[in-house]
Amino acid sequence: MSGKQGWHHSPTEALKVGPGFSLADFDPGATPGWHGGKADAEAEMTRRGADLDALQEQLFARGKEGDTRSVLLVLQGVDSAGKDGIVSHVVGLVNPMGVKITGFGVPTEEERKHDYLWRIRNALPSAGQVGVFDRSHYEQLLVVRVHNLVPPATWETYYDQINAFEAEVAAAGTTIVKCALLISPAEQLRRLEARLDDPSKYWKYNPKDLDERGNWNEYQAAYQAIFDRCSPAAAPWYAIPGDAKWYARLAVTELLAAAMEGLGLTWPAATFDVAAEKVRIASLDPDAPEAPPATKPGPR
Amino acid sequence: MSGKQGWHHSPTEALKVGPGFSLADFDPGATPGWHGGKADAEAEMTRRGADLDALQEQLFARGKEGDTRSVLLVLQGVDSAGKDGIVSHVVGLVNPMGVKITGFGVPTEEERKHDYLWRIRNALPSAGQVGVFDRSHYEQLLVVRVHNLVPPATWETYYDQINAFEAEVAAAGTTIVKCALLISPAEQLRRLEARLDDPSKYWKYNPKDLDERGNWNEYQAAYQAIFDRCSPAAAPWYAIPGDAKWYARLAVTELLAAAMEGLGLTWPAATFDVAAEKVRIASLDPDAPEAPPATKPGPR
Repeated sequence: MSGKQGWHHSPTEALKVGPGFSLADFDPGATPGWHGGKADAEAEMTRRGADLDALQEQLFARGKEGDTRSVLLVLQGVDSAGKDGIVSHVVGLVNPMGVKITGFGVPTEEERKHDYLWRIRNALPSAGQVGVFDRSHYEQLLVVRVHNLVPPATWETYYDQINAFEAEVAAAGTTIVKCALLISPAEQLRRLEARLDDPSKYWKYNPKDLDERGNWNEYQAAYQAIFDRCSPAAAPWYAIPGDAKWYARLAVTELLAAAMEGLGLTWPAATFDVAAEKVRIASLDPDAPEAPPATKPGPR
Repeated sequence: MSGKQGWHHSPTEALKVGPGFSLADFDPGATPGWHGGKADAEAEMTRRGADLDALQEQLFARGKEGDTRSVLLVLQGVDSAGKDGIVSHVVGLVNPMGVKITGFGVPTEEERKHDYLWRIRNALPSAGQVGVFDRSHYEQLLVVRVHNLVPPATWETYYDQINAFEAEVAAAGTTIVKCALLISPAEQLRRLEARLDDPSKYWKYNPKDLDERGNWNEYQAAYQAIFDRCSPAAAPWYAIPGDAKWYARLAVTELLAAAMEGLGLTWPAATFDVAAEKVRIASLDPDAPEAPPATKPGPR
Protein backbone atom coordinates (compact mmCIF):
# COMPACT_ATOMS: atom_id res chain seq x y z
CA MET A 1 0.00 0.00 0.00
CA SER A 2 1.37 3.42 -0.92
CA GLY A 3 1.78 6.35 1.43
CA LYS A 4 -0.63 8.42 -0.63
CA GLN A 5 -2.97 10.73 1.25
CA GLY A 6 -6.58 9.73 1.41
CA TRP A 7 -8.72 6.88 2.69
CA HIS A 8 -6.62 3.72 2.96
CA HIS A 9 -9.51 1.89 4.59
CA SER A 10 -13.05 2.85 3.83
CA PRO A 11 -14.72 4.37 6.91
CA THR A 12 -17.71 2.21 6.04
CA GLU A 13 -15.57 -0.68 7.20
CA ALA A 14 -13.16 1.03 9.59
CA LEU A 15 -15.87 2.69 11.70
CA LYS A 16 -18.62 0.09 11.58
CA VAL A 17 -19.78 -1.19 14.95
CA GLY A 18 -19.79 -4.96 14.76
CA PRO A 19 -19.96 -7.80 17.27
CA GLY A 20 -17.45 -7.40 20.07
CA PHE A 21 -17.08 -3.65 19.68
CA SER A 22 -15.88 -2.21 22.99
CA LEU A 23 -16.29 1.46 23.77
CA ALA A 24 -13.75 1.10 26.59
CA ASP A 25 -11.09 0.33 23.97
CA PHE A 26 -12.15 3.07 21.57
CA ASP A 27 -9.81 6.03 20.92
CA PRO A 28 -11.78 9.26 20.29
CA GLY A 29 -8.56 10.94 19.18
CA ALA A 30 -7.77 8.49 16.38
CA THR A 31 -8.34 9.00 12.67
CA PRO A 32 -8.98 5.45 11.44
CA GLY A 33 -8.50 4.74 7.76
CA TRP A 34 -7.33 8.22 6.85
CA HIS A 35 -3.78 8.98 5.81
CA GLY A 36 -3.15 12.70 5.94
CA GLY A 37 -3.85 15.73 8.06
CA LYS A 38 -6.40 18.46 8.37
CA ALA A 39 -5.47 20.29 5.16
CA ASP A 40 -5.71 17.07 3.14
CA ALA A 41 -9.06 16.44 4.75
CA GLU A 42 -10.36 19.84 3.74
CA ALA A 43 -9.38 19.23 0.12
CA GLU A 44 -11.09 15.85 0.23
CA MET A 45 -14.22 17.41 1.78
CA THR A 46 -14.44 19.82 -1.14
CA ARG A 47 -14.06 17.00 -3.65
CA ARG A 48 -16.46 14.63 -1.91
CA GLY A 49 -18.83 17.48 -1.13
CA ALA A 50 -19.35 17.97 -4.85
CA ASP A 51 -20.14 14.25 -5.21
CA LEU A 52 -22.54 14.45 -2.30
CA ASP A 53 -24.27 17.48 -3.80
CA ALA A 54 -24.75 15.64 -7.10
CA LEU A 55 -25.98 12.48 -5.37
CA GLN A 56 -28.49 14.48 -3.37
CA GLU A 57 -29.75 16.17 -6.52
CA GLN A 58 -30.14 12.77 -8.17
CA LEU A 59 -32.06 11.44 -5.19
CA PHE A 60 -34.26 14.55 -5.21
CA ALA A 61 -34.85 14.31 -8.96
CA ARG A 62 -35.82 10.65 -8.67
CA GLY A 63 -38.15 11.50 -5.79
CA LYS A 64 -39.98 13.94 -8.04
CA GLU A 65 -40.41 11.16 -10.58
CA GLY A 66 -41.92 8.64 -8.15
CA ASP A 67 -38.87 6.88 -6.68
CA THR A 68 -39.79 6.49 -3.00
CA ARG A 69 -36.27 6.11 -1.64
CA SER A 70 -34.77 8.50 0.88
CA VAL A 71 -31.78 8.74 3.20
CA LEU A 72 -31.69 9.40 6.94
CA LEU A 73 -28.59 10.52 8.81
CA VAL A 74 -28.91 9.92 12.55
CA LEU A 75 -26.50 11.88 14.75
CA GLN A 76 -25.91 11.11 18.39
CA GLY A 77 -23.30 12.34 20.81
CA VAL A 78 -22.89 13.99 24.20
CA ASP A 79 -23.06 17.77 24.55
CA SER A 80 -20.35 19.45 22.44
CA ALA A 81 -19.57 16.20 20.57
CA GLY A 82 -19.89 18.10 17.27
CA LYS A 83 -23.39 17.34 16.03
CA ASP A 84 -24.07 20.96 15.08
CA GLY A 85 -20.80 21.10 13.17
CA ILE A 86 -21.79 18.04 11.14
CA VAL A 87 -25.07 19.69 10.21
CA SER A 88 -23.36 22.91 9.24
CA HIS A 89 -20.26 21.52 7.51
CA VAL A 90 -21.43 18.21 6.04
CA VAL A 91 -25.17 18.60 5.49
CA GLY A 92 -24.39 22.17 4.41
CA LEU A 93 -22.54 20.75 1.39
CA VAL A 94 -25.80 19.86 -0.37
CA ASN A 95 -28.75 21.89 -1.64
CA PRO A 96 -30.87 22.70 1.43
CA MET A 97 -34.04 22.32 -0.64
CA GLY A 98 -33.78 18.53 -0.45
CA VAL A 99 -32.83 18.32 3.21
CA LYS A 100 -35.10 17.92 6.22
CA ILE A 101 -33.33 18.53 9.53
CA THR A 102 -34.96 17.86 12.87
CA GLY A 103 -33.44 18.48 16.26
CA PHE A 104 -34.95 16.40 19.06
CA GLY A 105 -34.88 18.15 22.39
CA VAL A 106 -36.89 17.56 25.54
CA PRO A 107 -40.31 16.39 24.28
CA THR A 108 -42.97 19.09 24.12
CA GLU A 109 -46.27 18.77 25.93
CA GLU A 110 -47.93 17.53 22.75
CA GLU A 111 -45.13 15.05 22.03
CA ARG A 112 -45.44 13.62 25.52
CA LYS A 113 -49.05 12.74 24.81
CA HIS A 114 -47.86 10.26 22.17
CA ASP A 115 -45.64 7.20 21.94
CA TYR A 116 -41.96 8.19 21.78
CA LEU A 117 -41.75 7.16 18.12
CA TRP A 118 -44.60 9.51 17.12
CA ARG A 119 -42.43 12.61 16.73
CA ILE A 120 -39.73 10.50 15.10
CA ARG A 121 -42.12 9.17 12.45
CA ASN A 122 -43.38 12.68 11.77
CA ALA A 123 -39.84 13.79 11.02
CA LEU A 124 -38.87 10.98 8.64
CA PRO A 125 -37.66 12.13 5.22
CA SER A 126 -40.09 12.02 2.31
CA ALA A 127 -39.27 10.39 -1.02
CA GLY A 128 -36.13 11.97 -2.44
CA GLN A 129 -35.17 13.77 0.76
CA VAL A 130 -32.09 13.54 2.93
CA GLY A 131 -33.35 13.57 6.50
CA VAL A 132 -31.10 14.51 9.39
CA PHE A 133 -31.82 13.74 13.04
CA ASP A 134 -29.84 15.84 15.50
CA ARG A 135 -30.39 13.44 18.40
CA SER A 136 -33.08 10.87 17.75
CA HIS A 137 -35.17 7.99 19.07
CA TYR A 138 -31.96 6.76 20.72
CA GLU A 139 -32.38 9.43 23.39
CA GLN A 140 -34.89 6.93 24.74
CA LEU A 141 -31.95 4.62 25.43
CA LEU A 142 -29.65 7.40 26.62
CA VAL A 143 -31.09 10.25 28.68
CA VAL A 144 -34.27 8.30 29.51
CA ARG A 145 -32.24 5.32 30.70
CA VAL A 146 -29.53 7.27 32.49
CA HIS A 147 -32.01 9.45 34.36
CA ASN A 148 -34.49 6.68 35.08
CA LEU A 149 -37.27 8.62 33.40
CA VAL A 150 -39.06 5.31 32.99
CA PRO A 151 -38.46 2.03 34.88
CA PRO A 152 -35.73 -0.29 33.53
CA ALA A 153 -38.35 -2.88 32.59
CA THR A 154 -39.79 -0.26 30.23
CA TRP A 155 -36.63 1.00 28.54
CA GLU A 156 -35.53 -2.61 28.22
CA THR A 157 -38.32 -3.00 25.66
CA TYR A 158 -37.09 -0.09 23.54
CA TYR A 159 -34.11 -1.91 22.01
CA ASP A 160 -36.26 -4.41 20.16
CA GLN A 161 -38.87 -1.76 19.34
CA ILE A 162 -36.25 0.48 17.80
CA ASN A 163 -34.74 -2.37 15.78
CA ALA A 164 -38.20 -3.22 14.47
CA PHE A 165 -38.94 0.44 13.72
CA GLU A 166 -35.71 0.88 11.77
CA ALA A 167 -36.26 -2.34 9.86
CA GLU A 168 -39.69 -1.14 8.84
CA VAL A 169 -38.40 2.27 7.78
CA ALA A 170 -35.59 0.64 5.79
CA ALA A 171 -38.05 -1.73 4.11
CA ALA A 172 -40.08 1.31 3.05
CA GLY A 173 -37.05 2.66 1.18
CA THR A 174 -35.09 4.76 3.66
CA THR A 175 -31.36 4.15 3.95
CA ILE A 176 -30.37 4.89 7.54
CA VAL A 177 -26.83 6.02 8.39
CA LYS A 178 -26.30 6.07 12.15
CA CYS A 179 -23.31 8.06 13.38
CA ALA A 180 -22.23 8.29 17.00
CA LEU A 181 -19.80 11.14 17.59
CA LEU A 182 -17.54 10.03 20.41
CA ILE A 183 -15.26 12.45 22.22
CA SER A 184 -12.99 12.10 25.23
CA PRO A 185 -13.87 13.64 28.60
CA ALA A 186 -10.85 15.95 28.29
CA GLU A 187 -11.92 17.19 24.85
CA GLN A 188 -15.43 17.85 26.13
CA LEU A 189 -14.08 19.94 28.97
CA ARG A 190 -11.89 21.94 26.55
CA ARG A 191 -14.91 22.67 24.34
CA LEU A 192 -17.16 23.70 27.21
CA GLU A 193 -14.40 25.92 28.58
CA ALA A 194 -13.88 27.55 25.18
CA ARG A 195 -17.54 28.53 25.12
CA LEU A 196 -16.99 30.54 28.28
CA ASP A 197 -14.14 32.45 26.67
CA ASP A 198 -16.22 33.71 23.74
CA PRO A 199 -19.41 35.76 24.27
CA SER A 200 -20.63 34.64 20.83
CA LYS A 201 -20.72 31.13 22.25
CA TYR A 202 -22.47 31.76 25.59
CA TRP A 203 -25.76 30.68 24.03
CA LYS A 204 -24.31 27.22 23.45
CA TYR A 205 -23.33 26.83 27.09
CA ASN A 206 -25.68 25.31 29.60
CA PRO A 207 -24.53 24.75 33.18
CA LYS A 208 -26.53 21.52 33.12
CA ASP A 209 -24.08 20.14 30.55
CA LEU A 210 -21.48 20.15 33.27
CA ASP A 211 -23.85 18.35 35.66
CA GLU A 212 -24.58 15.81 32.94
CA ARG A 213 -20.85 15.18 32.61
CA GLY A 214 -21.11 13.57 36.04
CA ASN A 215 -23.06 10.78 34.36
CA TRP A 216 -20.29 10.08 31.84
CA ASN A 217 -19.80 6.46 32.80
CA GLU A 218 -23.53 5.79 32.73
CA TYR A 219 -23.73 7.25 29.25
CA GLN A 220 -20.80 5.12 28.15
CA ALA A 221 -22.64 2.04 29.38
CA ALA A 222 -25.81 3.19 27.63
CA TYR A 223 -23.93 3.67 24.33
CA GLN A 224 -22.28 0.27 24.71
CA ALA A 225 -25.72 -1.32 25.15
CA ILE A 226 -26.98 0.44 22.02
CA PHE A 227 -23.95 -0.75 20.07
CA ASP A 228 -24.42 -4.30 21.38
CA ARG A 229 -28.13 -4.50 20.67
CA CYS A 230 -29.03 -2.02 17.90
CA SER A 231 -26.24 -2.41 15.38
CA PRO A 232 -27.32 -5.31 13.16
CA ALA A 233 -25.36 -5.91 9.97
CA ALA A 234 -28.18 -4.43 7.91
CA ALA A 235 -28.35 -1.19 9.96
CA PRO A 236 -25.04 -0.72 11.73
CA TRP A 237 -23.84 2.16 13.85
CA TYR A 238 -20.68 3.97 12.88
CA ALA A 239 -18.49 4.97 15.82
CA ILE A 240 -16.84 8.25 14.82
CA PRO A 241 -13.82 9.47 16.76
CA GLY A 242 -14.77 13.08 17.44
CA ASP A 243 -11.83 14.75 19.15
CA ALA A 244 -10.54 16.01 15.78
CA LYS A 245 -13.51 17.84 14.31
CA TRP A 246 -12.02 17.74 10.83
CA TYR A 247 -11.83 13.96 10.95
CA ALA A 248 -15.41 13.52 12.17
CA ARG A 249 -16.72 15.80 9.42
CA LEU A 250 -14.65 14.06 6.77
CA ALA A 251 -15.78 10.63 7.95
CA VAL A 252 -19.49 11.49 8.00
CA THR A 253 -19.17 13.04 4.53
CA GLU A 254 -17.65 9.81 3.26
CA LEU A 255 -20.18 7.57 5.04
CA LEU A 256 -23.08 9.56 3.64
CA ALA A 257 -21.64 9.71 0.13
CA ALA A 258 -20.87 5.98 0.17
CA ALA A 259 -24.39 5.17 1.37
CA MET A 260 -25.88 7.26 -1.41
CA GLU A 261 -23.58 5.77 -4.01
CA GLY A 262 -24.82 2.39 -2.84
CA LEU A 263 -28.30 3.33 -4.03
CA GLY A 264 -27.12 3.15 -7.65
CA LEU A 265 -28.94 6.38 -8.47
CA THR A 266 -29.32 7.47 -12.08
CA TRP A 267 -30.91 10.56 -13.57
CA PRO A 268 -34.59 9.99 -14.33
CA ALA A 269 -35.36 9.33 -17.98
CA ALA A 270 -37.30 11.96 -19.87
CA THR A 271 -41.05 11.58 -19.44
CA PHE A 272 -41.59 13.45 -22.73
CA ASP A 273 -40.34 13.26 -26.31
CA VAL A 274 -37.04 15.16 -26.22
CA ALA A 275 -36.75 15.53 -30.00
CA ALA A 276 -40.31 16.79 -30.32
CA GLU A 277 -39.76 19.35 -27.58
CA LYS A 278 -36.63 20.59 -29.31
CA VAL A 279 -38.66 21.08 -32.48
CA ARG A 280 -41.30 22.98 -30.52
CA ILE A 281 -38.71 25.26 -28.98
CA ALA A 282 -37.04 25.90 -32.32
CA SER A 283 -40.39 27.03 -33.71
CA LEU A 284 -40.84 29.76 -31.11
CA ASP A 285 -39.83 33.39 -31.37
CA PRO A 286 -37.49 33.92 -28.42
CA ASP A 287 -38.47 37.54 -27.94
CA ALA A 288 -42.20 37.35 -28.57
CA PRO A 289 -44.01 34.80 -26.47
CA GLU A 290 -47.39 33.93 -27.90
CA ALA A 291 -50.29 36.18 -27.06
CA PRO A 292 -52.69 34.61 -24.59
CA PRO A 293 -55.69 32.89 -26.17
CA ALA A 294 -58.52 35.26 -26.96
CA THR A 295 -60.91 33.41 -24.65
CA LYS A 296 -58.98 34.61 -21.60
CA PRO A 297 -59.88 37.97 -20.04
CA GLY A 298 -57.28 40.62 -20.75
CA PRO A 299 -55.15 42.26 -18.09
CA ARG A 300 -57.04 44.59 -15.84
CA MET B 1 -17.80 58.31 -6.88
CA SER B 2 -14.85 56.03 -7.58
CA GLY B 3 -14.76 53.25 -10.14
CA LYS B 4 -14.22 50.70 -7.37
CA GLN B 5 -15.89 47.34 -7.77
CA GLY B 6 -18.84 46.63 -5.53
CA TRP B 7 -22.26 48.01 -4.78
CA HIS B 8 -22.42 51.67 -5.77
CA HIS B 9 -26.11 51.80 -4.98
CA SER B 10 -27.60 49.53 -2.38
CA PRO B 11 -29.91 46.96 -3.99
CA THR B 12 -32.30 47.70 -1.14
CA GLU B 13 -32.85 51.02 -2.88
CA ALA B 14 -31.97 50.17 -6.47
CA LEU B 15 -34.33 47.18 -6.71
CA LYS B 16 -37.21 48.30 -4.52
CA VAL B 17 -40.59 48.40 -6.22
CA GLY B 18 -42.12 51.76 -5.44
CA PRO B 19 -45.01 53.80 -6.83
CA GLY B 20 -44.88 54.13 -10.61
CA PHE B 21 -42.78 51.01 -11.13
CA SER B 22 -43.38 49.72 -14.66
CA LEU B 23 -42.53 46.18 -15.60
CA ALA B 24 -42.73 47.14 -19.28
CA ASP B 25 -39.71 49.40 -18.77
CA PHE B 26 -37.76 46.87 -16.69
CA ASP B 27 -34.54 45.39 -18.09
CA PRO B 28 -34.05 41.77 -16.93
CA GLY B 29 -30.50 41.85 -18.29
CA ALA B 30 -29.34 44.83 -16.22
CA THR B 31 -27.21 44.71 -13.08
CA PRO B 32 -28.42 47.78 -11.17
CA GLY B 33 -26.16 49.20 -8.50
CA TRP B 34 -23.31 46.76 -9.08
CA HIS B 35 -19.98 47.80 -10.55
CA GLY B 36 -18.03 44.78 -11.63
CA GLY B 37 -18.50 41.45 -13.34
CA LYS B 38 -19.18 37.88 -12.47
CA ALA B 39 -15.80 37.15 -10.85
CA ASP B 40 -16.12 40.22 -8.62
CA ALA B 41 -19.61 39.08 -7.71
CA GLU B 42 -18.37 35.66 -6.67
CA ALA B 43 -15.77 37.19 -4.37
CA GLU B 44 -18.42 39.45 -2.88
CA MET B 45 -20.77 36.45 -2.41
CA THR B 46 -18.07 34.69 -0.39
CA ARG B 47 -17.52 37.76 1.76
CA ARG B 48 -21.20 38.53 2.28
CA GLY B 49 -22.01 34.85 2.67
CA ALA B 50 -19.85 34.80 5.79
CA ASP B 51 -21.77 37.80 7.14
CA LEU B 52 -25.05 36.10 6.33
CA ASP B 53 -23.95 32.92 8.06
CA ALA B 54 -23.04 34.87 11.21
CA LEU B 55 -26.29 36.86 11.12
CA GLN B 56 -28.30 33.66 10.79
CA GLU B 57 -26.46 32.14 13.74
CA GLN B 58 -27.19 35.25 15.79
CA LEU B 59 -30.88 35.10 14.87
CA PHE B 60 -30.95 31.39 15.74
CA ALA B 61 -29.16 31.95 19.04
CA ARG B 62 -31.56 34.73 19.99
CA GLY B 63 -34.50 32.52 19.06
CA LYS B 64 -33.26 29.92 21.53
CA GLU B 65 -33.20 32.60 24.21
CA GLY B 66 -36.77 33.78 23.65
CA ASP B 67 -36.43 36.43 20.93
CA THR B 68 -39.46 35.78 18.72
CA ARG B 69 -38.13 37.42 15.56
CA SER B 70 -37.64 35.56 12.31
CA VAL B 71 -36.99 36.27 8.64
CA LEU B 72 -38.94 35.13 5.59
CA LEU B 73 -37.55 35.19 2.07
CA VAL B 74 -40.32 34.98 -0.54
CA LEU B 75 -39.23 33.92 -4.03
CA GLN B 76 -41.40 34.29 -7.09
CA GLY B 77 -40.65 33.97 -10.78
CA VAL B 78 -41.72 32.12 -13.89
CA ASP B 79 -40.42 28.63 -14.65
CA SER B 80 -36.60 28.67 -14.97
CA ALA B 81 -36.34 32.16 -13.46
CA GLY B 82 -33.71 30.90 -11.02
CA LYS B 83 -35.58 30.25 -7.78
CA ASP B 84 -33.87 26.89 -7.23
CA GLY B 85 -30.49 28.49 -7.78
CA ILE B 86 -31.23 31.10 -5.11
CA VAL B 87 -32.10 28.35 -2.65
CA SER B 88 -28.96 26.40 -3.47
CA HIS B 89 -26.47 29.26 -3.79
CA VAL B 90 -27.79 31.93 -1.41
CA VAL B 91 -29.75 30.03 1.24
CA GLY B 92 -27.02 27.38 1.03
CA LEU B 93 -24.58 29.93 2.46
CA VAL B 94 -26.01 29.59 5.96
CA ASN B 95 -26.32 26.71 8.43
CA PRO B 96 -29.22 24.58 7.22
CA MET B 97 -30.23 23.88 10.83
CA GLY B 98 -31.81 27.31 11.13
CA VAL B 99 -33.52 27.33 7.75
CA LYS B 100 -37.03 26.22 6.87
CA ILE B 101 -37.64 25.91 3.13
CA THR B 102 -41.05 25.27 1.65
CA GLY B 103 -41.86 24.84 -2.01
CA PHE B 104 -45.47 25.57 -2.91
CA GLY B 105 -46.72 23.52 -5.82
CA VAL B 106 -50.22 22.65 -6.94
CA PRO B 107 -52.20 22.41 -3.68
CA THR B 108 -52.70 18.90 -2.36
CA GLU B 109 -56.12 17.44 -1.69
CA GLU B 110 -55.81 18.34 1.99
CA GLU B 111 -54.59 21.86 1.24
CA ARG B 112 -57.55 22.44 -1.06
CA LYS B 113 -59.88 21.77 1.84
CA HIS B 114 -58.57 24.89 3.57
CA ASP B 115 -58.29 28.60 2.89
CA TYR B 116 -55.33 29.35 0.59
CA LEU B 117 -53.40 30.94 3.46
CA TRP B 118 -53.65 27.78 5.59
CA ARG B 119 -50.63 26.04 4.08
CA ILE B 120 -48.77 29.34 4.03
CA ARG B 121 -49.30 29.92 7.75
CA ASN B 122 -48.20 26.36 8.48
CA ALA B 123 -44.91 27.03 6.72
CA LEU B 124 -44.03 30.33 8.42
CA PRO B 125 -40.64 30.37 10.15
CA SER B 126 -40.51 29.91 13.91
CA ALA B 127 -38.64 32.22 16.23
CA GLY B 128 -35.00 32.43 15.15
CA GLN B 129 -35.55 30.73 11.81
CA VAL B 130 -34.95 31.93 8.28
CA GLY B 131 -37.96 30.78 6.28
CA VAL B 132 -37.83 30.46 2.52
CA PHE B 133 -40.87 30.27 0.26
CA ASP B 134 -40.16 28.87 -3.21
CA ARG B 135 -43.35 30.26 -4.71
CA SER B 136 -45.87 31.48 -2.15
CA HIS B 137 -49.30 32.92 -1.45
CA TYR B 138 -48.70 35.12 -4.50
CA GLU B 139 -49.45 32.15 -6.74
CA GLN B 140 -53.03 33.06 -5.85
CA LEU B 141 -52.53 36.28 -7.82
CA LEU B 142 -50.51 34.62 -10.58
CA VAL B 143 -51.49 31.14 -11.75
CA VAL B 144 -54.93 31.34 -10.13
CA ARG B 145 -55.63 34.68 -11.80
CA VAL B 146 -54.09 33.85 -15.18
CA HIS B 147 -55.93 30.53 -15.46
CA ASN B 148 -59.22 31.80 -14.06
CA LEU B 149 -59.18 29.15 -11.36
CA VAL B 150 -61.54 31.38 -9.40
CA PRO B 151 -63.73 34.23 -10.70
CA PRO B 152 -62.10 37.68 -10.97
CA ALA B 153 -64.37 39.00 -8.21
CA THR B 154 -62.75 36.43 -5.92
CA TRP B 155 -59.08 36.94 -6.75
CA GLU B 156 -59.71 40.69 -6.60
CA THR B 157 -60.17 40.23 -2.84
CA TYR B 158 -56.79 38.52 -2.43
CA TYR B 159 -54.68 41.69 -2.79
CA ASP B 160 -56.04 43.25 0.38
CA GLN B 161 -56.11 39.91 2.17
CA ILE B 162 -52.46 39.30 1.40
CA ASN B 163 -51.47 42.80 2.50
CA ALA B 164 -53.32 42.26 5.77
CA PHE B 165 -51.75 38.83 6.22
CA GLU B 166 -48.25 40.14 5.66
CA ALA B 167 -48.83 43.07 8.00
CA GLU B 168 -49.95 40.68 10.72
CA VAL B 169 -46.97 38.38 10.20
CA ALA B 170 -44.62 41.38 10.26
CA ALA B 171 -46.23 42.68 13.45
CA ALA B 172 -45.61 39.28 15.03
CA GLY B 173 -41.87 39.70 14.40
CA THR B 174 -41.18 38.28 10.95
CA THR B 175 -39.18 40.41 8.54
CA ILE B 176 -40.40 39.60 5.03
CA VAL B 177 -38.10 40.01 2.02
CA LYS B 178 -40.04 39.59 -1.23
CA CYS B 179 -37.94 38.92 -4.31
CA ALA B 180 -39.35 38.62 -7.82
CA LEU B 181 -36.86 37.04 -10.22
CA LEU B 182 -37.58 38.57 -13.61
CA ILE B 183 -36.13 37.11 -16.79
CA SER B 184 -36.64 37.94 -20.45
CA PRO B 185 -38.60 35.65 -22.77
CA ALA B 186 -35.43 34.97 -24.75
CA GLU B 187 -33.49 33.94 -21.64
CA GLN B 188 -36.31 31.64 -20.57
CA LEU B 189 -36.24 29.91 -23.94
CA ARG B 190 -32.45 29.48 -23.73
CA ARG B 191 -32.76 27.88 -20.30
CA LEU B 192 -35.56 25.52 -21.29
CA GLU B 193 -33.60 24.54 -24.40
CA ALA B 194 -30.48 23.88 -22.35
CA ARG B 195 -32.44 21.41 -20.21
CA LEU B 196 -33.14 19.37 -23.32
CA ASP B 197 -29.44 19.18 -24.14
CA ASP B 198 -28.46 17.63 -20.80
CA PRO B 199 -29.98 14.33 -19.58
CA SER B 200 -29.17 15.36 -15.99
CA LYS B 201 -31.65 18.22 -16.46
CA TYR B 202 -34.55 16.35 -18.07
CA TRP B 203 -36.25 16.12 -14.68
CA LYS B 204 -36.45 19.90 -14.57
CA TYR B 205 -38.18 20.09 -17.92
CA ASN B 206 -41.94 20.00 -18.18
CA PRO B 207 -43.63 20.43 -21.58
CA LYS B 208 -46.30 22.44 -19.77
CA ASP B 209 -43.72 25.13 -19.06
CA LEU B 210 -43.67 25.83 -22.77
CA ASP B 211 -47.46 26.00 -22.87
CA GLU B 212 -47.38 28.38 -19.92
CA ARG B 213 -45.01 30.60 -21.82
CA GLY B 214 -47.97 31.38 -24.08
CA ASN B 215 -49.44 33.28 -21.13
CA TRP B 216 -46.36 35.48 -20.76
CA ASN B 217 -48.20 38.75 -21.23
CA GLU B 218 -50.90 37.73 -18.80
CA TYR B 219 -48.28 36.91 -16.21
CA GLN B 220 -46.60 40.25 -16.81
CA ALA B 221 -49.91 41.97 -16.14
CA ALA B 222 -50.42 39.86 -13.02
CA TYR B 223 -46.95 40.78 -11.70
CA GLN B 224 -47.59 44.45 -12.46
CA ALA B 225 -50.82 44.31 -10.45
CA ILE B 226 -48.97 42.69 -7.54
CA PHE B 227 -46.29 45.37 -7.69
CA ASP B 228 -48.95 48.10 -7.85
CA ARG B 229 -51.04 46.78 -5.00
CA CYS B 230 -48.87 44.63 -2.71
CA SER B 231 -45.64 46.62 -2.41
CA PRO B 232 -46.25 49.06 0.44
CA ALA B 233 -43.27 50.98 1.80
CA ALA B 234 -43.23 48.74 4.89
CA ALA B 235 -43.20 45.48 2.89
CA PRO B 236 -41.89 46.23 -0.59
CA TRP B 237 -41.15 43.86 -3.42
CA TYR B 238 -37.70 43.77 -4.90
CA ALA B 239 -37.59 43.36 -8.67
CA ILE B 240 -34.47 41.35 -9.43
CA PRO B 241 -33.12 41.26 -12.97
CA GLY B 242 -32.61 37.55 -13.50
CA ASP B 243 -30.99 37.05 -16.88
CA ALA B 244 -27.54 37.05 -15.27
CA LYS B 245 -27.79 34.36 -12.60
CA TRP B 246 -24.72 35.65 -10.82
CA TYR B 247 -26.32 39.07 -10.41
CA ALA B 248 -29.61 37.71 -9.09
CA ARG B 249 -27.81 35.56 -6.52
CA LEU B 250 -25.57 38.42 -5.46
CA ALA B 251 -28.52 40.78 -5.15
CA VAL B 252 -30.63 38.40 -3.03
CA THR B 253 -27.62 37.72 -0.80
CA GLU B 254 -27.26 41.44 -0.23
CA LEU B 255 -30.98 42.05 0.30
CA LEU B 256 -31.16 39.25 2.84
CA ALA B 257 -27.99 40.32 4.65
CA ALA B 258 -29.14 43.94 4.75
CA ALA B 259 -32.55 42.94 6.10
CA MET B 260 -30.92 40.88 8.83
CA GLU B 261 -28.44 43.64 9.68
CA GLY B 262 -31.47 45.89 10.07
CA LEU B 263 -32.63 43.73 12.97
CA GLY B 264 -29.73 44.98 15.08
CA LEU B 265 -29.00 41.48 16.30
CA THR B 266 -26.56 40.91 19.14
CA TRP B 267 -25.35 37.74 20.78
CA PRO B 268 -27.55 36.75 23.72
CA ALA B 269 -26.11 37.62 27.11
CA ALA B 270 -25.07 34.74 29.35
CA THR B 271 -27.98 33.39 31.39
CA PHE B 272 -25.53 32.03 33.96
CA ASP B 273 -22.59 33.31 36.00
CA VAL B 274 -19.64 33.04 33.60
CA ALA B 275 -16.96 33.46 36.29
CA ALA B 276 -18.58 30.85 38.52
CA GLU B 277 -18.77 28.37 35.66
CA LYS B 278 -15.11 28.92 34.87
CA VAL B 279 -14.30 28.11 38.49
CA ARG B 280 -16.41 24.97 38.30
CA ILE B 281 -14.64 23.81 35.14
CA ALA B 282 -11.21 24.52 36.60
CA SER B 283 -12.09 22.29 39.56
CA LEU B 284 -12.77 19.25 37.37
CA ASP B 285 -10.37 16.51 36.39
CA PRO B 286 -10.41 16.58 32.57
CA ASP B 287 -9.77 12.86 32.22
CA ALA B 288 -11.93 11.54 35.03
CA PRO B 289 -15.52 12.66 34.91
CA GLU B 290 -17.26 12.21 38.24
CA ALA B 291 -18.75 8.87 39.02
CA PRO B 292 -22.52 8.87 38.85
CA PRO B 293 -24.29 9.43 42.16
CA ALA B 294 -24.67 6.27 44.17
CA THR B 295 -28.47 6.50 44.12
CA LYS B 296 -28.48 5.72 40.40
CA PRO B 297 -28.52 2.12 39.23
CA GLY B 298 -25.20 1.05 37.79
CA PRO B 299 -24.70 0.08 34.18
CA ARG B 300 -26.26 -3.21 33.21
